[in-house]
Amino acid sequence: MAAWREGPVGIVGLGLIGGSLARALKAAGATVYAYDPDPAALAAARAEGVVDEAGPVAAWAGRVGLCLLAVPLGATPAAVAEVAPLLPAGAVLAETASLKGPVLPALAAVPAAVRPLSLHPMAGREQRGWVASTAGLFRGLPLLAVPVPGRALPRGMLGRLAAALEARPAVVPAAYHDVVMARVSHLPYLLAAALLLAAAETPGGEGWMAAAGSGFRDTSRVGASPPDMWQELVAANAGPTGQALEAVARRLQGWAEDLRAGRPLAGLEQAPAIRQRWEEAGHERT
Amino acid sequence: MAAWREGPVGIVGLGLIGGSLARALKAAGATVYAYDPDPAALAAARAEGVVDEAGPVAAWAGRVGLCLLAVPLGATPAAVAEVAPLLPAGAVLAETASLKGPVLPALAAVPAAVRPLSLHPMAGREQRGWVASTAGLFRGLPLLAVPVPGRALPRGMLGRLAAALEARPAVVPAAYHDVVMARVSHLPYLLAAALLLAAAETPGGEGWMAAAGSGFRDTSRVGASPPDMWQELVAANAGPTGQALEAVARRLQGWAEDLRAGRPLAGLEQAPAIRQRWEEAGHERT
Repeated sequence: MAAWREGPVGIVGLGLIGGSLARALKAAGATVYAYDPDPAALAAARAEGVVDEAGPVAAWAGRVGLCLLAVPLGATPAAVAEVAPLLPAGAVLAETASLKGPVLPALAAVPAAVRPLSLHPMAGREQRGWVASTAGLFRGLPLLAVPVPGRALPRGMLGRLAAALEARPAVVPAAYHDVVMARVSHLPYLLAAALLLAAAETPGGEGWMAAAGSGFRDTSRVGASPPDMWQELVAANAGPTGQALEAVARRLQGWAEDLRAGRPLAGLEQAPAIRQRWEEAGHERT
Repeated sequence: MAAWREGPVGIVGLGLIGGSLARALKAAGATVYAYDPDPAALAAARAEGVVDEAGPVAAWAGRVGLCLLAVPLGATPAAVAEVAPLLPAGAVLAETASLKGPVLPALAAVPAAVRPLSLHPMAGREQRGWVASTAGLFRGLPLLAVPVPGRALPRGMLGRLAAALEARPAVVPAAYHDVVMARVSHLPYLLAAALLLAAAETPGGEGWMAAAGSGFRDTSRVGASPPDMWQELVAANAGPTGQALEAVARRLQGWAEDLRAGRPLAGLEQAPAIRQRWEEAGHERT
């Protein structure tokens, strides 16, 4: 992990993502200021020594070089607009929302003295909140940055933040980001959930539970994550997610027809090479 | 791991499953005899000290208390018929095929002096062959046993074998086994493969690779396993697999319609509880 030499960091929201950012940055040596609407989370972060100063944003915003927003997707545009005017000139204001279409206009509109940074850490857990946060959450995983229209990308800050998190920085075009999310984030979750629902409907009852081994374990894992968070995400990215779902539904239906016709399942032979290309691109966590 | 006190074990086939059985039983203290049609696998197992005697089945079959067949599904009935007459009275002849419909008739027909045992270890890896085998392959995972029509289930041997492998023994009715496999084994693989194919078709090119994080990693993992093995399996279990594929295809299509209509995705809220029930039944490997 690279030592943090950027001055104090402010974090708004100490849930799974914000809490994990706070822990990783504190471990890298940063001074961390934080706010969370839940006094218990704020007190725990302070008591554990992860946060140096806990309180309203206005109390500490004027002293940070980087402010990270880790609030729900729907609350992000308002948080951007509220926090930006409180920051010192030259500070970077970063948000971590999982979709970019709904938040980029607010980032494009921050005062000229503030540098916006649109981030999406591709990390998660089945649990959430401060109690689930961990300093290693981002290790080895992508930290996406989406250019904000009309604004310079603060590449130096992106690189130093990624180093502190031990994450892999990657710049993804805004228009492409939400399409990619439908395929590599929303679809894995939805297929994992569909697998759980299909297992529960096994004709003959729940004896399937004794028989589910490593394939079921891995493929279904992310299906255990909080449905309401995902309902919000897929609704905000309905077009690309619906297209991805329909593409997979067509493929599964085609495979069922292949089985009825006694044919090999079409395209299956390509799957290992796709996974291998992804791993060879360095993205498999060891 | 429980020490093995059952006398010599014979193993036919030293691929991923047979090789892993040999390693685990040798680690438990068993004397292991083995045959594999590939002289290189046989020589490697002998050289590594995993196998005590390597050679044709007829050379050692008369001295074993347990003979394990770990050959391809299609070759299993013939192997059962060939090996059974060579075993001493009271010996257990076990096979490890992934489907039971195609192999149970051969097991039901073994001589009365031999005790048939139909096993399905719910374990796998993306690689195969002797080189991929590992003593811990079965640890913490289900070891299914399917009763052979008209024959007694050798429960004692099943329990002692499971203890040596550190696996979880479970008896599953024959008629139910292949239906369950469609849902908890074939379906996870097929959904993982479908996810890889959907990612590769992301509109806009392979920038998706930089963005695929932990959800994609886990959900797609088993999609990297050998397609030809799976083609054979799903063809041999075409009915239940086709029904499972169609059920998931209908669900995904329904979710796409939910998104178009601005509705929450139906049923999603049930997924975490299903996964939790399975984990609470003790099946999550830690």
